[in-house]
Amino acid sequence: MKRFGQLIRLKPGVLESYKRYHAAIWPEVAATITACNIRNYSIFHKDGYLYAYMEYVGKDFDADMAKMAADPKTQEWWAIMKPMQDPIPNRAPGEWWADLEEVFHQD
Amino acid sequence: MKRFGQLIRLKPGVLESYKRYHAAIWPEVAATITACNIRNYSIFHKDGYLYAYMEYVGKDFDADMAKMAADPKTQEWWAIMKPMQDPIPNRAPGEWWADLEEVFHQD
Repeated sequence: MKRFGQLIRLKPGVLESYKRYHAAIWPEVAATITACNIRNYSIFHKDGYLYAYMEYVGKDFDADMAKMAADPKTQEWWAIMKPMQDPIPNRAPGEWWADLEEVFHQD
Repeated sequence: MKRFGQLIRLKPGVLESYKRYHAAIWPEVAATITACNIRNYSIFHKDGYLYAYMEYVGKDFDADMAKMAADPKTQEWWAIMKPMQDPIPNRAPGEWWADLEEVFHQD
């Protein structure tokens, strides 16, 4: 299992909408997350920043992320979410959500 | 089980020291974390901000946090960590690490 922490900003004024969508995530999108081997997935908010935590239980993360990106319902969901998001300037090339560095873990 | 997300800043220049301490956390401090019913505890870093994720499996969070705060070795550890940390201005009264709001979770 590999843990991921990720960071992104929200644009001003969209938090309530973002929360409403995520309180009623589309079943197909939720099912794709599970099918792509993501578990224990949380998103937290503070001051316009979103922090995601998730655990990857598959064997080929890149392949699973490609599978997720190819899912039509997920694409439809992202087409609503992405305009609400404002990626941080200091993300790595190719990132949308910026990966965080794990500096401590204790089971 | 209750999930917590928390946020704090590091002062400039202390990241490597903070990481070294956490790569070799004192056994007594780690044991106290476990004794206080914290599990699956991760800390992530990006751009001088630390983001913690943890799961609380006990029945009385306030009592367990008081127990942690009363532990002499933990106090000694905090006396080294706190001067490295710079709490965010927009934290709630009484907070050191600022609590994040959970806006999404999927097992």
